[in-house]
Amino acid sequence: MAQNSVEKTPVTLLGLGAMGSALARTWLAAGHPLTVWNRTPARADALAAEGANVADSAAEAVAANKLVVTCLLDDASVGEALAGTDLAGRDLVNLTTSTPAQARDRAAWAGDRGARYLDGGIMAVPPMIGVPEAGGYVFYSGSRELFERHQDTLAAPAGTTYVGEDAGFAALHDVALLSAMYGMFAGTAHAFALIRKEDIDPAALAPLLADWLIAMAPAVHQTADHLRTGDYTKDVVSNLAMQVAGTPTFLSTAEQQGVSSELLSPYFELMRRRLAEGGGEEDLTGLIDLLVH
Amino acid sequence: MAQNSVEKTPVTLLGLGAMGSALARTWLAAGHPLTVWNRTPARADALAAEGANVADSAAEAVAANKLVVTCLLDDASVGEALAGTDLAGRDLVNLTTSTPAQARDRAAWAGDRGARYLDGGIMAVPPMIGVPEAGGYVFYSGSRELFERHQDTLAAPAGTTYVGEDAGFAALHDVALLSAMYGMFAGTAHAFALIRKEDIDPAALAPLLADWLIAMAPAVHQTADHLRTGDYTKDVVSNLAMQVAGTPTFLSTAEQQGVSSELLSPYFELMRRRLAEGGGEEDLTGLIDLLVH
Ligand SMILES: NC(=O)c1ccc[n+]([C@@H]2O[C@H](COP(=O)([O-])OP(=O)(O)OC[C@H]3O[C@@H](n4cnc5c(N)ncnc54)[C@H](OP(=O)(O)O)[C@@H]3O)[C@@H](O)[C@H]2O)c1
Ligand SMILES: NC(=O)c1ccc[n+]([C@@H]2O[C@H](COP(=O)([O-])OP(=O)(O)OC[C@H]3O[C@@H](n4cnc5c(N)ncnc54)[C@H](OP(=O)(O)O)[C@@H]3O)[C@@H](O)[C@H]2O)c1
Repeated sequence: MAQNSVEKTPVTLLGLGAMGSALARTWLAAGHPLTVWNRTPARADALAAEGANVADSAAEAVAANKLVVTCLLDDASVGEALAGTDLAGRDLVNLTTSTPAQARDRAAWAGDRGARYLDGGIMAVPPMIGVPEAGGYVFYSGSRELFERHQDTLAAPAGTTYVGEDAGFAALHDVALLSAMYGMFAGTAHAFALIRKEDIDPAALAPLLADWLIAMAPAVHQTADHLRTGDYTKDVVSNLAMQVAGTPTFLSTAEQQGVSSELLSPYFELMRRRLAEGGGEEDLTGLIDLLVH
Repeated sequence: MAQNSVEKTPVTLLGLGAMGSALARTWLAAGHPLTVWNRTPARADALAAEGANVADSAAEAVAANKLVVTCLLDDASVGEALAGTDLAGRDLVNLTTSTPAQARDRAAWAGDRGARYLDGGIMAVPPMIGVPEAGGYVFYSGSRELFERHQDTLAAPAGTTYVGEDAGFAALHDVALLSAMYGMFAGTAHAFALIRKEDIDPAALAPLLADWLIAMAPAVHQTADHLRTGDYTKDVVSNLAMQVAGTPTFLSTAEQQGVSSELLSPYFELMRRRLAEGGGEEDLTGLIDLLVH
């Protein structure tokens, strides 16, 4: 008999890399019976000592429990690992990073094999897993029924955010947020480059940068409002014409500091294109339309 | 006699555009005697009604008070506006956006004319001026003595952050923060573009984006630490090799969604270059060095 008054859902987990191992520990810690499998068996040893059942094959692991979670390198490795397994009647939750198209195809593939499918995109690094205050979470999309049935179990490693029945939407949200983050990192790289040869402590610039970006990030709400209404001129404080007029200051400063403007120029180029097309009274929302074919 | 027990420093302000007018109102509201001048005289009418003295020429305005603030279009307009004025003994505070080199040259130019010089870079838009809770502030650099003498007066429109004796540092900090912001905006533009053709409400994506960027902005502290120590591998969670391995997912997702990757590719290209040079165990700090010639 279980020691807990409420039985915890047993979980099968395929993949014990950095992320899979972190997930595994949170389910063990939360009292879920856990069966694991990893292609390289030695990576399961530590988890066996912590109470996980180690399956000899992926097929055996899948057979052990109804809820099967995959956290493998990429979509191809999911196909390989699950190739010889019987997925009929299984609830497959795939936390492997993939593109929206891969996730949709994988959902159809799982359906063909009699499994329900939920896709996940993990917005966290392994040290944030099982640490709620770190704020990490996972986007889920696909079968809503499956999400609702397993939400408590899925909440053990990180927060859960369901974004729709389309199996590709978790991946799309994941990629959208990480793409935005790389844009921000490109911006901060340029900023640090500008002071690289000056007698300015990077640790003095850092809090100014962080505070400024944190203050400016909510600009996305106005962008969203503009995209919804189609009116890109509403409540605009610094219009595109003014902002384009300011770009030479950014480019000459980069040149003066010996910094390549390769990370800034493509955005400024879009600004110029939109201005040339007559968007001078808009804010920056119109640039988004120039990106979409 | 003044009504206040403490006499407020009289201020001369040249330039009554959107920003200059906002500044003017905060000094009037705080009880500072204010003399204004604007190239196009009609823009001073409203301020005259609110209590400002309107000078007939820039020379008359400069002669009126020791503290002279300029907030004009660009550095060239500062040169033009001040050309026929006597700056000897004046405390010149230039809040006109300029490059670091322009600010340094302007400081020397002012020194040649017997004026002390403080340069400012305004991190705010006009609606944030005089609204402390909006969080806007001004970077100042140049004469520390001048900054300290006038700090209370300068604090009326917005917060004050002094960043060094080098007159170019205010402009450099200003440009660094705004450049980083444009990087972030480029990232969010790409993110919104990715969902443009999907049945996803931009207003649902916006808070996810804002929260994620706000959570990731403090990554600059680790970057600063790496730049200071020169060790770019310390406490790295997702190394460059892993991150480069992830880039195809971002690029194929963009392609699947019909979105140009022109805003992301330059950063990914730098990642690939740094990896090729042997930076696989680093985080992203090494990319900064690739930007600086
Ligand atoms: N780590 C992060 O910061 C992070 C953050 C968000 C999302 N993710 C995502 O989480 C997933 C796992 O990441 P990770 O950090 O755990 O990666 P990892 O440490 O590199 O582990 C990769 C895992 O995939 C397995 N694998 C690779 N190819 C396989 C194949 N052909 N057949 C069977 N198994 C195969 C590996 O098995 P072996 O041990 O046999 O090599 C290992 O278990 C990825 O999709 C990643 O994008 C990771
Ligand atoms: N607005 C913002 O959001 C913002 C934010 C941060 C920093 N700033 C900076 O603040 C400064 C002023 O911006 P603003 O928004 O007030 O600009 P603005 O509304 O365009 O006003 C420009 C001002 O410069 C004057 N001017 C232009 N050329 C001149 C010349 N050759 N001689 C004399 N005066 C001249 C204009 O006089 P006329 O009225 O005669 O044309 C006007 O007073 C700029 O450096 C800007 O970069 C603005």
